[in-house]
Amino acid sequence: MPTARQLIAIGGSDAGISAALRARELDPATEVTVVVADNYPNFSICGIPYYVSGEVTHWSNLAHRTAADLAATGMRVLTDTTATRIDPSAHTLTVRDASGTEQVLSYDALVVGTGATSVRPPITGLDRLGAAEGVHLLHSMGDTFTVMDSLRDRDPKTAVIIGAGYIGLEMAEGLTMRGIQVTQIEALPEVLPTVDSELGALVHAELERNKVEVLTDTLVTAVTREPSGALTVTAARDGETLSRTVDFVLVVVGVKPDVALAANAGAELGVKGSIVVDEQMRTNLPDVFAAGDCVHTHHRLLGTTWLPLGTTAHKQGRVAGENALGGSARFAGSLGTQVVKIFDLVAARTGLKDGEAVAADRGWVPVSSTATPDDHKAYYPGATPITIRITGDQQSGVLLGAQLVGHRSAEVSKRVDTYATALFHGTTVDAFSELDLSYTPPLGSPWDATQVATQTWVREHHLDRHRTALRQH
Amino acid sequence: MPTARQLIAIGGSDAGISAALRARELDPATEVTVVVADNYPNFSICGIPYYVSGEVTHWSNLAHRTAADLAATGMRVLTDTTATRIDPSAHTLTVRDASGTEQVLSYDALVVGTGATSVRPPITGLDRLGAAEGVHLLHSMGDTFTVMDSLRDRDPKTAVIIGAGYIGLEMAEGLTMRGIQVTQIEALPEVLPTVDSELGALVHAELERNKVEVLTDTLVTAVTREPSGALTVTAARDGETLSRTVDFVLVVVGVKPDVALAANAGAELGVKGSIVVDEQMRTNLPDVFAAGDCVHTHHRLLGTTWLPLGTTAHKQGRVAGENALGGSARFAGSLGTQVVKIFDLVAARTGLKDGEAVAADRGWVPVSSTATPDDHKAYYPGATPITIRITGDQQSGVLLGAQLVGHRSAEVSKRVDTYATALFHGTTVDAFSELDLSYTPPLGSPWDATQVATQTWVREHHLDRHRTALRQH
Repeated sequence: MPTARQLIAIGGSDAGISAALRARELDPATEVTVVVADNYPNFSICGIPYYVSGEVTHWSNLAHRTAADLAATGMRVLTDTTATRIDPSAHTLTVRDASGTEQVLSYDALVVGTGATSVRPPITGLDRLGAAEGVHLLHSMGDTFTVMDSLRDRDPKTAVIIGAGYIGLEMAEGLTMRGIQVTQIEALPEVLPTVDSELGALVHAELERNKVEVLTDTLVTAVTREPSGALTVTAARDGETLSRTVDFVLVVVGVKPDVALAANAGAELGVKGSIVVDEQMRTNLPDVFAAGDCVHTHHRLLGTTWLPLGTTAHKQGRVAGENALGGSARFAGSLGTQVVKIFDLVAARTGLKDGEAVAADRGWVPVSSTATPDDHKAYYPGATPITIRITGDQQSGVLLGAQLVGHRSAEVSKRVDTYATALFHGTTVDAFSELDLSYTPPLGSPWDATQVATQTWVREHHLDRHRTALRQH
Repeated sequence: MPTARQLIAIGGSDAGISAALRARELDPATEVTVVVADNYPNFSICGIPYYVSGEVTHWSNLAHRTAADLAATGMRVLTDTTATRIDPSAHTLTVRDASGTEQVLSYDALVVGTGATSVRPPITGLDRLGAAEGVHLLHSMGDTFTVMDSLRDRDPKTAVIIGAGYIGLEMAEGLTMRGIQVTQIEALPEVLPTVDSELGALVHAELERNKVEVLTDTLVTAVTREPSGALTVTAARDGETLSRTVDFVLVVVGVKPDVALAANAGAELGVKGSIVVDEQMRTNLPDVFAAGDCVHTHHRLLGTTWLPLGTTAHKQGRVAGENALGGSARFAGSLGTQVVKIFDLVAARTGLKDGEAVAADRGWVPVSSTATPDDHKAYYPGATPITIRITGDQQSGVLLGAQLVGHRSAEVSKRVDTYATALFHGTTVDAFSELDLSYTPPLGSPWDATQVATQTWVREHHLDRHRTALRQH
């Protein structure tokens, strides 16, 4: 009897687990091992802010699947086990368990899903301060436990959050829900820089409505521990120096790909140091696939970029898992679709903003329009405007992107999905009106808000095409 | 100076007004006249149940646009004016105003948007009973006012609603909100027959949870007025006769196209007596366009059918308005996307059910799967399952349709839009997983519920394709 095919996935987060699940689903004869550095395989990192806020009552609820669920699929999960060396020619992976014991595992195919690690910005004093002093990064379950210990032990009344991206904003809400007065500091001119500042300003206002102090265009230069144990955050803004002395500091300014293991084995690195893969998620090393936050991202509009997202990691992992069995699946590409809830607002985007479309260097002349249609018919109670910014190419009329901000009751996250689905298929802004979308007065309009927004774009930027066609008739 | 081009639209509902708006938008030099039989141009017929329920406090709020809004576009609206005769060769329309005065209007292009009228089913006694006796149809604003008068004057405590389609269900909710005990009677085996009975049963249960008595598989045979003024509704069920004596009866069993005006002028009629049009909304009569509930429907999957919907009327009217100016716009076709809210449930569908796909006679072998994924991550408060039924072609794997029922918090109406957008572009069920949809734990999952449902279909009906591909590799 031949030995069963051996698949090893490195990493217990979205990419590694997705690859393992797909392989088990497609071929139960393949033996699948997942090597997980900590004891939290298949945890929802995106859920951490809701555990910190108290909305998720026990950390174990953050597991997408329990250890028993994973075992039931037939995969083997090695927790508290660090992958230390890939030998591509020998097709072996060296791992070390919690006791320090090393073991060499053979593989037929390997999926690297080592993810990303927090960026530690060059702020004076930050290298000397850590969890013991109430200064935290937040990316892993381990980080989460130290944050929770710190919140319990220090019982902070005030906090500074450095960074106003997705996790920074969610943590501003989470800490506010715990009764902590939060100051949020962002180096860029507006919070949530992934959307245009016109929309970011709505999020900014929502933070302030919920008593978060928001400092934008403000660069943190130093964090100092006072003799009392308090932490002073010093920052520069408009040439002035300002400071806040607080009980707790959270640094969430982004992540970088974790590629050392693969790079040491000879994996080619590309944009922002991420691992280069083809659309089948193959690295340059034989039978070594990679997926998730550690790899560069095929973007349907931008080409190759680096855009780490859990949704993308799931898709890439699934493709890697199928191809590790000898398949030929392809990752169809990202559109950078993202959504975040901040207090009672939801902000979402898909595709490109103007500047990104120019930078894509594909000849687009991007123009944008903003509309504020109601989420449903105004006569039915609860109607609320959604701010929708549409970006399209002035020449071809092709839809390039959409950004939305609205109340959490306004179904913003699924409306961005309608745009994402249309974008996926390469529609024009004008043709978006042809889509047969649903309507009932409590939930929409005969032209859905998404279509009102694209019609606004056409009216402002493309209506002359129709008029010219009529005149030529 | 040449005379301005004259466009006349007949009908003040979605199709006529959309045509008029589009014409004014594209060519302000065209003179546009809209002939409206009643005094309620551009009213939202779909909103009537919410006026009856009391959620819309004044009937005038049901106007999509006020008379002043319409006048501001530069169109002329002739209210209380009946179109009595089209003379296609002379290019004239005869109209009669409220005083009985006739007038002959010349047109360069005409758009017929005469809509639909209520079906009066062959129930014994129904022809002798009307609003004065508390027996009502409900399709127009005029019907609405008589219903409201009747509710005020009769102050009914009990009602029978004959029919459990969209408006019947909405009215069950509306009358219940007014404190009326409702019995809903449906001739078919389950309520909301536009979805499969497995999903209709969820709506059925929601009605009962809200104290509506639901009688399915029950055919009303007679309505009788008692000497007291009460109304006895007699019905047959399983060979038994049953009856309910109530204060108020609403008959909402469907509509039929209103085509007499066009037919008398020689317009060709087709499926279910609706006006035949091409994809540019042209009838067989020169320079006569038609749109909305009075015309047959180009359906992207079914070919030609009759499927009256407000969303479709808006799109067709817009195409007709552009082409009436000499344009060459095309109606891209319907997918039958629909949604209805019933108490705290939302039910939606797009595309085809199994039986419809077989009847389409395009060689499909439809198979369906039902999944019940949560609307968002279970660890975040408020997660609720959505029942999603996916239909696809077993041979090609092409997506044919989706039906969804879930809590009104579950963003069902925009999730059906994601399916509708994918269907519009002819995707496969498997490729639906490639869509880059949004995710944040309070609002979704890394694989959105819509993708969990399509993955369930693939697992049940199509996974062998992937396995075979692997074996052949």
